[in-house]
Amino acid sequence: MNEISVCFSPILHQYYADSESIVVLVDIFRATTSMCVAFENGIKSIRTTADIEEAKEYKNNGFLVAAERNTQKCEFADFGNSPFDFTPEKIAGKELIFTTTNGTKAVDTAKDVCELIIGAFSNISAVTNHCIEKNKNIVILCSGWNDRFCLEDTLYAGALTEKLINTGKFTYKSDSTQAALDLWRIAQNKLIEYICTTEHYARLKKNGLESAVEYCLTQDTVSVVPVLDKETGSFIIEKIH
Amino acid sequence: MNEISVCFSPILHQYYADSESIVVLVDIFRATTSMCVAFENGIKSIRTTADIEEAKEYKNNGFLVAAERNTQKCEFADFGNSPFDFTPEKIAGKELIFTTTNGTKAVDTAKDVCELIIGAFSNISAVTNHCIEKNKNIVILCSGWNDRFCLEDTLYAGALTEKLINTGKFTYKSDSTQAALDLWRIAQNKLIEYICTTEHYARLKKNGLESAVEYCLTQDTVSVVPVLDKETGSFIIEKIH
Repeated sequence: MNEISVCFSPILHQYYADSESIVVLVDIFRATTSMCVAFENGIKSIRTTADIEEAKEYKNNGFLVAAERNTQKCEFADFGNSPFDFTPEKIAGKELIFTTTNGTKAVDTAKDVCELIIGAFSNISAVTNHCIEKNKNIVILCSGWNDRFCLEDTLYAGALTEKLINTGKFTYKSDSTQAALDLWRIAQNKLIEYICTTEHYARLKKNGLESAVEYCLTQDTVSVVPVLDKETGSFIIEKIH
Repeated sequence: MNEISVCFSPILHQYYADSESIVVLVDIFRATTSMCVAFENGIKSIRTTADIEEAKEYKNNGFLVAAERNTQKCEFADFGNSPFDFTPEKIAGKELIFTTTNGTKAVDTAKDVCELIIGAFSNISAVTNHCIEKNKNIVILCSGWNDRFCLEDTLYAGALTEKLINTGKFTYKSDSTQAALDLWRIAQNKLIEYICTTEHYARLKKNGLESAVEYCLTQDTVSVVPVLDKETGSFIIEKIH
């Protein structure tokens, strides 16, 4: 049986990582959700960077850039980090440079693993199918908020764990996986209400961005699994389930 | 209102720490539980070290030493890390050197904070009273297991949070505190059964040490609050509630 581990912060990734596992990177509010919708809407590739100066340089060289810090769009960029920004007419067939507060930093801690894929509620069934096909251990890497634990990524980790163990092909031993699963089971039937108590919801609301919350928590709005292409260093779509 | 934050790993402490908060250090299985019982049974002071060679040196210089790695007593030491080791006839009035797999390493990450105290289910009401008296923000620092998240410390964090917010003098904003509280509320009425699913229980059982589990989960068996004395670098009892 393959094993599922949940890692609550990019800072802890070294204590959960191994060279054989697939890492599912998650940043529900909103980086990985936005990446999923961008690929569903036809973007060709996404290159992430944690460095805002690097993102500016790309912009100056004519690239399409999405940049966000502390929930707000950076002025120089074409897009912020809202899943509603990435419409087909704006992004189909294009390459995007992407930098966000947490999610793109988490990519850096995991880019050397066996396989790095992008997970969100938006593509949870596609990720489940991908993991079944690959038949490896899974590390669910939560981006958190400024390296602290966050609930929305943890709930996704619990939801994905439940889907994976229900296939009968996955199991878990780690306490963090148990905790994520138990928290998901508490929250799943009152998800919006539960999320309204979290730190990140308060930040999004303060910035008038709570409209994305419901979308970010909705399962299976897309069918793509973005995968890091190690040759180019960009995320691409390997296949559509 | 004073705020409660929960930190799930010593590695994350820097993201939760500030110079004003009291840090409650917890390692339920078994370092902080054992420290509580040692003080209840009359030990004068406990000096922790994460370095096993340093502990050996202390032993060679005639000190009383408790040393544990991966749940087992180190051969050179007088004691392991079982709360049953520290009987009054063996330790009353003495100074103890203490090194364990996780708890004493966590001390090192927190020794420069405003005040560092030792928490366990054993002294949970005494710690609650201490926090009320001091009237400061609280960081509950979980020792975890080899820097990974662990459930038993998290459950204690949830239990202490519940006691503190029930006084009406404390509140919380952080997601980790919410998570600890929710996990405590799931587990509190079936604590032994819940703990039997954890990683550390499996390790203790494998080493024939599960007899300490029930004791480590029992509330208010002692009335002491060990406090780090910054002048000497040792834990002492400041006062008895």
